[in-house]
Amino acid sequence: MIIYSKNIYLENKKISGFLKIEDKKIIDIVETTDEFTKDSLNNYVLNDLKWDKDNEILDYSDFTIIPGFIDNHIHGWGTGSFWFEKSKKSITEMQKNLPSEGVTSFLATTGADTIEEILTQIDEASLIYEAEQNGAEMVGLHLEGPFVSKEYKGMQKEENCILPNIEFMKSFYNRQTSKGLIKLMTMAPELDGAKEVAEFCKDKGIQLSIGHTGSTFDKIKEMKDYGFGGFTHTFSGMRGMHHRELGVVGAALYFDDMYCEFAKQTGLTVKHEAFDIALRVKTSDKIILSTDCCGLAMTDKPWHHYVRKITLIPQENGVMIKHDDGREEILDNSKYENVRDLEMSYIDSVKNVIKHSKVDIFDIMKMASINPAKYINIYDKKGSIDINKDADLLVIDKEFNLIETVVRGSIYN
Amino acid sequence: MIIYSKNIYLENKKISGFLKIEDKKIIDIVETTDEFTKDSLNNYVLNDLKWDKDNEILDYSDFTIIPGFIDNHIHGWGTGSFWFEKSKKSITEMQKNLPSEGVTSFLATTGADTIEEILTQIDEASLIYEAEQNGAEMVGLHLEGPFVSKEYKGMQKEENCILPNIEFMKSFYNRQTSKGLIKLMTMAPELDGAKEVAEFCKDKGIQLSIGHTGSTFDKIKEMKDYGFGGFTHTFSGMRGMHHRELGVVGAALYFDDMYCEFAKQTGLTVKHEAFDIALRVKTSDKIILSTDCCGLAMTDKPWHHYVRKITLIPQENGVMIKHDDGREEILDNSKYENVRDLEMSYIDSVKNVIKHSKVDIFDIMKMASINPAKYINIYDKKGSIDINKDADLLVIDKEFNLIETVVRGSIYN
Repeated sequence: MIIYSKNIYLENKKISGFLKIEDKKIIDIVETTDEFTKDSLNNYVLNDLKWDKDNEILDYSDFTIIPGFIDNHIHGWGTGSFWFEKSKKSITEMQKNLPSEGVTSFLATTGADTIEEILTQIDEASLIYEAEQNGAEMVGLHLEGPFVSKEYKGMQKEENCILPNIEFMKSFYNRQTSKGLIKLMTMAPELDGAKEVAEFCKDKGIQLSIGHTGSTFDKIKEMKDYGFGGFTHTFSGMRGMHHRELGVVGAALYFDDMYCEFAKQTGLTVKHEAFDIALRVKTSDKIILSTDCCGLAMTDKPWHHYVRKITLIPQENGVMIKHDDGREEILDNSKYENVRDLEMSYIDSVKNVIKHSKVDIFDIMKMASINPAKYINIYDKKGSIDINKDADLLVIDKEFNLIETVVRGSIYN
Repeated sequence: MIIYSKNIYLENKKISGFLKIEDKKIIDIVETTDEFTKDSLNNYVLNDLKWDKDNEILDYSDFTIIPGFIDNHIHGWGTGSFWFEKSKKSITEMQKNLPSEGVTSFLATTGADTIEEILTQIDEASLIYEAEQNGAEMVGLHLEGPFVSKEYKGMQKEENCILPNIEFMKSFYNRQTSKGLIKLMTMAPELDGAKEVAEFCKDKGIQLSIGHTGSTFDKIKEMKDYGFGGFTHTFSGMRGMHHRELGVVGAALYFDDMYCEFAKQTGLTVKHEAFDIALRVKTSDKIILSTDCCGLAMTDKPWHHYVRKITLIPQENGVMIKHDDGREEILDNSKYENVRDLEMSYIDSVKNVIKHSKVDIFDIMKMASINPAKYINIYDKKGSIDINKDADLLVIDKEFNLIETVVRGSIYN
């Protein structure tokens, strides 16, 4: 496959030119300032580039090509919830529908569940990880807990928020059939046992992230050398900032070598202005966008979402949405279009960032593709448009509407 | 007087050259890249510049010349406390000793006192304002209160924190014998009556500042058009930031057209890291350094300083410092050198900013001279080294030690 566009965004520059894609990868990039008609484009590819004439040429002249989004923090999406269902099938559902929201790879994310439940999730995710994948690529697991603070549990189950335990951590690690499956671990660094677990994770190449935590600023200053490289859903589920005890929020803003992950920018959980302050302090070099979506429609038990002011109640053929104000509706959760709007998608969250903050396409690429890839150490194969990297691409228009998604060299429709 | 230096900092550039000072003002600035000996310097002034040979030539070749600091928030200093003593003499004492700390002009600052007390302070300050001034120039008054929130009173007296009252405001305004005396007014914008008082102040050219306040973010968004241009001692005495209610701290960080004043950077009241976060968000373009010093040694009644953990108790011949840990000492408060170290001076606070944040001399000039002058509308005559501005200058070495202070054309020793 050959892609032509006047607006291809490489990591540090925009070019006009061609991408040659074979075997799921970008194998060549050619820059040209020539203008083409349909015929001259074909001639240029055949005669000037001397690229194989059997290659399909996709002409996206006036559209923009950027790398696909990478969601490091997603429990579920649409018709699949890895968090609630804990099944291989739930991941398959996510893979199927995420490309339509701009996501070409993701970390299936667990929560504070029982040790047995997390082990089950590792088993199911292993089945996906080791086979040929279709749709958005599940590049690994993000274990959000269970070693997190009860006090800052947010929507995690309090009874499952436990102290860091090296034996449990080893059991997670050993349960993986491929040792690279677990890529990210959210933990509260102030808890007893955190050092031992952190050292183990660092040694095994698992990125540590600070989250659901009541840590002090000084504790984070001490623990960042143990492998904690950033903060999970910054502002939420963490000790706030005071000017004499900067807390976790203060540390997140202050340490310029640490990443701040932000859950989807609805403006509801974290006000746009709060995000914007963080963006100005950290710059797009150190911000990571994620969705923290759950696949709400697939809930296995009734639960109240305190920020959104709704209760989700599983039904025989779907899910009931009961608003705090009394309104009720039942959705058939087997159909993606019915449940798609229950949560804000990655691309809509990106559009909100563009709407409320001063950012350009390079900033968006950093926050949505480059930084998430670097954070979980997959930047050698994903996160930017470069030779020998996976052909994970988005074709967008000037309003950041998604025209086409290319996932490992295949057009997603 | 003629000053020569290789490092004269104008607002936007550093030059090597000469400043000609007459009648308290800078009347000429000449740039030269020539190198001089003592003789050739004299010759250059006489023969090339053709400046009057009676002018004293001060050779500060390798030192640095910057504008004097302007302290918009200072209740007292050393042997004088306008806050406690409320007298003309207290201001004279401040004027005498502030140049040795780099301060060449200041706003004598009131607190939340009774209406009668504030009127007395206006009377006493008027006497200074209208006469020939010696030492640091008292360029006006900052009324910090009394229209501030009891809940966020900090060290203000709760019984004197009252709702904004237009009649009281008019009585302050009318009591001035010169209408430009009151330059700055700190008020809580959420209080009933704030709009009417703000409109009056805006009309009279009195700069409004948000302080001692529990305001919400949205209230500030509404009230900023009423003339509130910044925030008094940012972080202290105000509602903190939460990511769903950004409060006063969030508004201070967010609105990039508003100034953030910071009280002296001891690291005690506001941690250096908290200041640094604000500096990175606001940039030096919108930060104002002040001291908020009180002249602690001149206290009129015993009072406990909860941040510093000391109680100050007036004695017949001085002041007793009683530490929370039991230690006691008595200081003779008639001697500046005895009480100088009770509070951190402006220049020492500046040195702390340099030590803990990434700033250059241009940043310091903005925060300590340019911005404070612009905020209180005296930038036409102070705040930078420019022709026709007052000759308020500091001669410093590379470590920001003060070598000499020039106050309106006179060397302060």
